[in-house]
Amino acid sequence: MAETPIRFGILGCAGIARKLSRAITISPNSILYAIGSRSLDKAKKFAAENGFPPSAKIYDSYEAVLDDPDVDAVYVPLPTSLHVKWAVLAAEKKKHLLLEKPVALNVAEFDLIIEACEANGVQFMDGTMWMHHPRTAKMSEFLADSQRFGQLTTVHSIFTNAGDEDFLKNDIRVKPELDGLGALGDIGWYCIRSILWAVNYELPKTVTALRGAILNEAGVILACGSSLEWEDRKTSTFYCSFLSNLTIDITVIGTKGTLHIHDFVIPHEEETASFTAASKSGFKEFATGWDPLPSQCVVATDIPQDASMVREFSRLVKSIKEGGSKPENKWPSISRKTQLVLDKVKESIEKGFEPVQVGA
Amino acid sequence: MAETPIRFGILGCAGIARKLSRAITISPNSILYAIGSRSLDKAKKFAAENGFPPSAKIYDSYEAVLDDPDVDAVYVPLPTSLHVKWAVLAAEKKKHLLLEKPVALNVAEFDLIIEACEANGVQFMDGTMWMHHPRTAKMSEFLADSQRFGQLTTVHSIFTNAGDEDFLKNDIRVKPELDGLGALGDIGWYCIRSILWAVNYELPKTVTALRGAILNEAGVILACGSSLEWEDRKTSTFYCSFLSNLTIDITVIGTKGTLHIHDFVIPHEEETASFTAASKSGFKEFATGWDPLPSQCVVATDIPQDASMVREFSRLVKSIKEGGSKPENKWPSISRKTQLVLDKVKESIEKGFEPVQVGA
Repeated sequence: MAETPIRFGILGCAGIARKLSRAITISPNSILYAIGSRSLDKAKKFAAENGFPPSAKIYDSYEAVLDDPDVDAVYVPLPTSLHVKWAVLAAEKKKHLLLEKPVALNVAEFDLIIEACEANGVQFMDGTMWMHHPRTAKMSEFLADSQRFGQLTTVHSIFTNAGDEDFLKNDIRVKPELDGLGALGDIGWYCIRSILWAVNYELPKTVTALRGAILNEAGVILACGSSLEWEDRKTSTFYCSFLSNLTIDITVIGTKGTLHIHDFVIPHEEETASFTAASKSGFKEFATGWDPLPSQCVVATDIPQDASMVREFSRLVKSIKEGGSKPENKWPSISRKTQLVLDKVKESIEKGFEPVQVGA
Repeated sequence: MAETPIRFGILGCAGIARKLSRAITISPNSILYAIGSRSLDKAKKFAAENGFPPSAKIYDSYEAVLDDPDVDAVYVPLPTSLHVKWAVLAAEKKKHLLLEKPVALNVAEFDLIIEACEANGVQFMDGTMWMHHPRTAKMSEFLADSQRFGQLTTVHSIFTNAGDEDFLKNDIRVKPELDGLGALGDIGWYCIRSILWAVNYELPKTVTALRGAILNEAGVILACGSSLEWEDRKTSTFYCSFLSNLTIDITVIGTKGTLHIHDFVIPHEEETASFTAASKSGFKEFATGWDPLPSQCVVATDIPQDASMVREFSRLVKSIKEGGSKPENKWPSISRKTQLVLDKVKESIEKGFEPVQVGA
């Protein structure tokens, strides 16, 4: 018997929705089923250009997608300021929810989304694709290896991506009324997630934004950094910016090992991805070189990481829909922690780079 | 006519002096000429094991090396707390000075050393070997390239090296009375130097140590980090630690380019060294990969970087000694800036991680 695929509806025609449409098509357990936009013409054009089947439903509103009883799940790539409204409504309409990051303008808003998902028994997942790359699982194995990596001591994460003049003037991500979190929400999100991932999602005790944050005239963050500190003296720093050349790094250092990766959010290539692992590194006599040298680990992918994300999300949705399972709590839980730390970085910037306690 | 080599005297038998003895032997314009130790037996053994010629002078005190009129230059690898005494005395005895880092316990002490060198017309250079690797010059070219790299926006530097139980208990670098600057002085020195190098030695406006510094029971720094901020909104962070696996990184990001290096202090191999340069990085359509990819630049060495340092130092000494040149001011100047920032990091830690103005 052929598996019934999960039927996706997409709210809006954002640029990122093109990438996700491709992913939904590639993923073996999902199909593009509906799209809604305030402009029917835009929706039609989007569907035609992004692999929607002829049978796909084209709607002139987001509500209509949510009202379609055959839509199982929705992908919501709307501006962050609209997340709480549409995500809550989607959950109330019993649609499973794949929501773009940052998940909300703040944790209080996100809690409304989580509550709606819980009350309606729908799966929540945010659109942080690299979590689903098989390389990430391989790196987690290395970090969990007490012989090769030891205890984690520090993490540094960077995501910078230079916006051009038009982006810095007109993009929704630099407009306070749309995506008020700026570079922190758009790409700092990944830095924070990578740090939480590395420490197995243990929240830091304190967050202190770094002096030198750059805001635009409207007060939206264009570049900022932060240090984080844990109860057990682990530390971390990150830096994100719309004003610097594309750079995406994680460096995780433990008592016995070191992990380096330079493309954690988007791998350099789609078919394979690599990272560098070093263990018990040292110098040769007279420090003429290193012994042992770090080694490169290459991980092949069967499908792209975005499709892998859709596949995992659809698998969870399917087991709720057909098998009576409960939603997997891991995904909303790590979304919330990421948003919480993000909020604290923003608060620290607003307080003149004072340390801020994280709490829970 | 054969060139007359610069005759080196070495004060003490520190471990690092073995590496420098090899470098002095390899460098074409220098020779091992004398060694002094409080123990004549130790000095004899050191000379026999480290390539000193049979004619080398073996002395039972540091003073005797300084009093030998045929010694042109001294290499001083003594504990930091002894630098000011012996460096000043060496300068007064007209010996050119190759001094291990950190150059002093603080800038006030270092200023006494500089004054003595200036008053006596001797060359000063600190033992930061990587400055002299041809790779460093190649990287500087990249950072200076307004087309490929643009304007520098941020730098991150890491030097961690896990000390074993014995090191953490007994090494001079964890003893307050010997090398009171701990990991900050020993390896944080390199992080600070790399940051200053990247910004063309412009001093930061503010230094703020990162919360989470780890000190031993005697108050010596075992791990710490700092953020630095410049007048024009460049920023930087660094992290150094005796408690984490050997890791040596610089990441320099500009508006158009990115530089990555994972072995800046000691290259992975002695014969060649590499770095990664990326320029105008971006994603392919659907962000399925990067275009262009970063590229690796490989730089060959003619002699090891430590020998290259000795060669440059000896060249300067020779042109003072034989050509009547004045000492090259670049080297003491960048030593002083490195020490100054180092002092400010320490001050910020002592002030509970408050920002500290750098001044000059």
